[in-house]
Amino acid sequence: MSTHAESVLIGLVGDGVLPSLTPPLHEREGDVQGLRYLYRPLDLPGIGLPADAIGDVLLWSSRLGFNGLNVTHPCKQLVLEHLDEMSDDARRLGAVNTVLIRDGRFIGHNTDFSGFSRALADGLPGAALDRVVQLGAGGAGSAVADALLTAGVRVFDLVDTDPGRCAERAEALGELFPQTRVTAHAAAELPALLAEADGVVNCTPVGMAAHPGAPFDTGLLESRHWVADVVYRPLETQLVREARVAGCRVLDGGRMAVGQAADAFRLFTGRDADAGRMREHFLELIAAEEAPATAGAGL
Amino acid sequence: MSTHAESVLIGLVGDGVLPSLTPPLHEREGDVQGLRYLYRPLDLPGIGLPADAIGDVLLWSSRLGFNGLNVTHPCKQLVLEHLDEMSDDARRLGAVNTVLIRDGRFIGHNTDFSGFSRALADGLPGAALDRVVQLGAGGAGSAVADALLTAGVRVFDLVDTDPGRCAERAEALGELFPQTRVTAHAAAELPALLAEADGVVNCTPVGMAAHPGAPFDTGLLESRHWVADVVYRPLETQLVREARVAGCRVLDGGRMAVGQAADAFRLFTGRDADAGRMREHFLELIAAEEAPATAGAGL
Repeated sequence: MSTHAESVLIGLVGDGVLPSLTPPLHEREGDVQGLRYLYRPLDLPGIGLPADAIGDVLLWSSRLGFNGLNVTHPCKQLVLEHLDEMSDDARRLGAVNTVLIRDGRFIGHNTDFSGFSRALADGLPGAALDRVVQLGAGGAGSAVADALLTAGVRVFDLVDTDPGRCAERAEALGELFPQTRVTAHAAAELPALLAEADGVVNCTPVGMAAHPGAPFDTGLLESRHWVADVVYRPLETQLVREARVAGCRVLDGGRMAVGQAADAFRLFTGRDADAGRMREHFLELIAAEEAPATAGAGL
Repeated sequence: MSTHAESVLIGLVGDGVLPSLTPPLHEREGDVQGLRYLYRPLDLPGIGLPADAIGDVLLWSSRLGFNGLNVTHPCKQLVLEHLDEMSDDARRLGAVNTVLIRDGRFIGHNTDFSGFSRALADGLPGAALDRVVQLGAGGAGSAVADALLTAGVRVFDLVDTDPGRCAERAEALGELFPQTRVTAHAAAELPALLAEADGVVNCTPVGMAAHPGAPFDTGLLESRHWVADVVYRPLETQLVREARVAGCRVLDGGRMAVGQAADAFRLFTGRDADAGRMREHFLELIAAEEAPATAGAGL
């Protein structure tokens, strides 16, 4: 009867989101669970909107019957001022990637934190965490830093092209995790930082389809480093590929992507998602997408 | 692969649309055809928007990934100025109930005309059409009038509470159908008009859940009249019920509703809809809705 109540309409808002696998991941999990689930990627440049139109996007999403939004680069912090409520995690992190729309109210959550925590434990078991370099102090960066410091990093070096943002995040992290030495750095310091580090995490968008390249000179990597990337499409970013060539242990962005999607699904629908099934779907989707490219390369 | 391309997101914009059966009709036909189909009712008063916000609703529907909108009372004429293109039918009728969104452009159609034409032929075969009274000169009224005059009405009396709109529509119809005598009237003339008429059609929203009552004094009906209503929910409006009691032949709004929905489905998806199957779905939906009410009445 209540078709509206049993159907779920979600959007993914940000720059360069059209190739995202999050929409089909949610839709397929919704299908298995018997929901009418439709998830639209909403590419801000494509629809002619600046990032700071996120407040209008929220308002109109509510008016037009959306149940929630995932929010990504560059809106994870811009969205904060438009929310009516926030989860404790999101408030601590200062970033939101999941907005529930309930009776015209906007409730912010952050599933990047839980997604990366799970990825780290599953994908890099036993990795040394004494000293870690992280590139990127934006929305996803906040969640990953929080997960790393929660996991026990002792010296944490944060690098960002925006010195003000970088210093601000480092100071905030230092206050939240007084047992960790957190410092802000410019990109020029990377050679010295990596010489001392156990591992490095990319939390910038560099490596995404819309931002090709590697986020730093991978010639600085040694086989003793572990390397994590939060970019998941392509799964094999230039950083991941070159880190493997250098002999590093590597954590690609796929597991974090699935973890955050499973948590967001649960928040949007009130139903548990099967993360293992979503991981299988994810790998199928990646394989289906990469197959034509491989075939094309052979021609 | 192209989840976006194979999925269909539609909205129904107007006042009092939440009880509409058009959304589940489309969704069930989409399900049978293997589409990911989600159709949201967008009740303007419920989302705090005036009718003349229809232009903004179109713009944001496009931005947020809708493939099209059905448009109903009170927006079928207000929408015209916001369209990039119109079908010949919609232009002639001066009213649009279906808007396709294609690459940010808005293309207007009118499936009320074809829906009512089919309903009249199927539901009132052989009905006398020499002289017909129609109540309501709005968007649906234009389409129904066009269908009636196309079917051969000789004297057509149009009644509306807005004398200016009524005179304007009557004049336009008279120009389009010079073989018919079309005149505009005030509601006070209804007793005299019905005394001469073969049939009467309600094209006002009166009888809908949000506008209860009958559109005129049904004590004026005689068994020789046929009575048609374009309101389809409830299927048994007060007008339909009292007309049956008076012994009139009756055409309820259900068949027109299914006809317009089947045509809109075809326009939105590019695939034919099975109107017979949609009619079955419609009657199931009506029965499912009316069953609890009946049970409740017995308590």
